[in-house]
Amino acid sequence: MAFEPLRAACIGMGWWSDVLADAIQRSKKLKIVACYTRSEEKRRAFAAKYGCRAAPSYEAILEDRAIEAIVNTTPNDAHLETTRAAAAAAKHVFLDKPIANTVSEGRAITVACRKAGVVLALGYQRRRESHFRWIRAQIDAGAFGKLVNAEANISRDRVGKIDLGSWRYTAAGMPGGVMLQIGIHYTDVLEYLLGPIKAVNGRSAQLVLPGDNPDVASLVLEHEGGALSTLNASYASASEY
Amino acid sequence: MAFEPLRAACIGMGWWSDVLADAIQRSKKLKIVACYTRSEEKRRAFAAKYGCRAAPSYEAILEDRAIEAIVNTTPNDAHLETTRAAAAAAKHVFLDKPIANTVSEGRAITVACRKAGVVLALGYQRRRESHFRWIRAQIDAGAFGKLVNAEANISRDRVGKIDLGSWRYTAAGMPGGVMLQIGIHYTDVLEYLLGPIKAVNGRSAQLVLPGDNPDVASLVLEHEGGALSTLNASYASASEY
Repeated sequence: MAFEPLRAACIGMGWWSDVLADAIQRSKKLKIVACYTRSEEKRRAFAAKYGCRAAPSYEAILEDRAIEAIVNTTPNDAHLETTRAAAAAAKHVFLDKPIANTVSEGRAITVACRKAGVVLALGYQRRRESHFRWIRAQIDAGAFGKLVNAEANISRDRVGKIDLGSWRYTAAGMPGGVMLQIGIHYTDVLEYLLGPIKAVNGRSAQLVLPGDNPDVASLVLEHEGGALSTLNASYASASEY
Repeated sequence: MAFEPLRAACIGMGWWSDVLADAIQRSKKLKIVACYTRSEEKRRAFAAKYGCRAAPSYEAILEDRAIEAIVNTTPNDAHLETTRAAAAAAKHVFLDKPIANTVSEGRAITVACRKAGVVLALGYQRRRESHFRWIRAQIDAGAFGKLVNAEANISRDRVGKIDLGSWRYTAAGMPGGVMLQIGIHYTDVLEYLLGPIKAVNGRSAQLVLPGDNPDVASLVLEHEGGALSTLNASYASASEY
């Protein structure tokens, strides 16, 4: 059977848009046909790099019936508006974690996609890593018995290395700091391995990084099956061990 | 200078009383001169094993002016009454963790000893282990820079191995279950290494053991210096790794 790749437009050009575009090119399951970002220079560069059309506006992409999906790498606070518009234009959306900066915006995004009947694909790549898939397979095979407790840590030493001009490192662009930015990868992995999370306790602190955002955070998670887990996320200590 | 060992009486005979008595004999800093427990059989056996007098009552020990200290290994819920009586009799007290089952009883114990001017020695042996002392020395030497985050785990597989007749495994004798019984060792170690704890969030669950007590528990601790730490304690999984 011939496979026709999904025709996608990428929006929001930054370093992560290129990581995804590279993966799209390797997978051949999507084809990048257009791109848009506010900076003309950035969208021309992306268009040249990935052999697609630089659209004059996001509206032009939405109006293009040939485009079936949006790969959305805009900043978090633009996710709701851009995704709602994509859903209204009957286009599927790929959206990276965190899909929103607030629970209510996250809910509004899922409702918009569900009502429009389009797929909302979530970018949580960690659960797709082979070691976590292996553990999941072991759990399914009963190798670990009843799950009761797990510990997760995701740490990156960002001391002296952060760009306070990036929305990724400000409380406005990434409320919750290190926990929303990288810790959330492991709330997803813990949910993938131990099941849905029904309650959370947590604390965060800003201890060594400049700016206005927490750089250390700790959670206790209660899973529906009863298991408890903890998650530590840090931008103030070396990578996880 | 000649060293005169402190004359001590042991009260509350169980398996832990003998662990401490063995250590006392090795240290030679104390001399066990008397013992008391409600079971005449147990106190006679202890007296024979450690070459001390089996006192007919706790009162007899308290009235003996030659006895300077009490090594108290009674169950938690007897700590307050026995320690208050010892302090009133001007005797120093060694009391194992947890010193009480409630914060108010713990405070009453410390107040009684302080007012009587006697030493209340606490049995938290974990912080005395050489690896934790080594880490403490490294911290003092500045090897780790600013402390921001730590993780602790204390787990013991008790599935099929617990004695529900022991106060150590019941909610009445050891409220909080695994966290009060063994987890507390590592709240002490975390405090030893990261400084005083000013806030705690936690959850506990009873998942695999019989009885009426939590067998899995998780805490997030906030230290006065700002560092966050997590502690997981379990009687439902293998020993810490």
